[in-house]
Amino acid sequence: MNCKMAFSEQLTDLAKRTLDAAKANNRSIVTAESCTAGKLSGLLSEAPGASAFLHGGFVTYTKENKSKALGVSAELLKNKTAVCVDVAVEMAQGALKRSPANVAVAITGVAGPEPDEDGNPVGLVCIAVARNDVPPVRIEKRYGEIGREAIQEHAMADALTELIDAISEQ
Amino acid sequence: MNCKMAFSEQLTDLAKRTLDAAKANNRSIVTAESCTAGKLSGLLSEAPGASAFLHGGFVTYTKENKSKALGVSAELLKNKTAVCVDVAVEMAQGALKRSPANVAVAITGVAGPEPDEDGNPVGLVCIAVARNDVPPVRIEKRYGEIGREAIQEHAMADALTELIDAISEQ
Repeated sequence: MNCKMAFSEQLTDLAKRTLDAAKANNRSIVTAESCTAGKLSGLLSEAPGASAFLHGGFVTYTKENKSKALGVSAELLKNKTAVCVDVAVEMAQGALKRSPANVAVAITGVAGPEPDEDGNPVGLVCIAVARNDVPPVRIEKRYGEIGREAIQEHAMADALTELIDAISEQ
Repeated sequence: MNCKMAFSEQLTDLAKRTLDAAKANNRSIVTAESCTAGKLSGLLSEAPGASAFLHGGFVTYTKENKSKALGVSAELLKNKTAVCVDVAVEMAQGALKRSPANVAVAITGVAGPEPDEDGNPVGLVCIAVARNDVPPVRIEKRYGEIGREAIQEHAMADALTELIDAISEQ
């Protein structure tokens, strides 16, 4: 079988730095993903130390599953769509509550090629990082129509950069 | 950025057939992954129709998270380790219960390069498929030490083959 599941060198390096930071600060990680659909947890699982500092993640591709698996407010999803920073924050906080981890990172966005059912544009991505002891990090990015994989890669790189900062902060 | 997250043609084809079967039989899918760590949901999300028939998944990398996020019995994990068909079945059933999906596929195994903490050998993988209306499918595979990525690819291919059968069965 032809194996092609490797990630770019930049992402592999960011994943390694994330796990190094988790180990140094005794933080354990959980992910909550929509438009990256499990690729971020897959990337993190390849880094050294993952078995000790990565608990896993939640992939919530549909709105219905964002509510059922992560407890995101159905009213929020209806009023503000699935791609907004408030949903990203609720995804991260829901993952934190439903796993043994003490830091969570969430990504929700439109990887394309089409805008989502609510008309959110391709390339719009919201990221949140949550810990129990500090207010959540809230980020909105507009990458534009640069292609599905490039949007996913940029979203993962930005999410890990924020996650490393949050893990390293005392 | 260099994009390398493509999957092999065989896996891409299996994912497409899985979503086609889900659409034809009105089944919606959830995954529960340990040693593939989100790669199966990532693969499925690339197939046409994913946004309508894939709800998402759970990545439970640690034993602790298998219990907390999916409700796998801590006693079972202690007595029979994380890599056995009974754990795969509880992961699939837990995912079914905690998502809006009506069919679930679970993978737990040792991708390597080292045996797991309980001495389970590299290449041992257990797969389960659960629906609410029929007994679960239970599979044990021993791929041997063929390399981490090859083990993950074989596990995903076998899991999707079982999932397609379970979806297509009336």
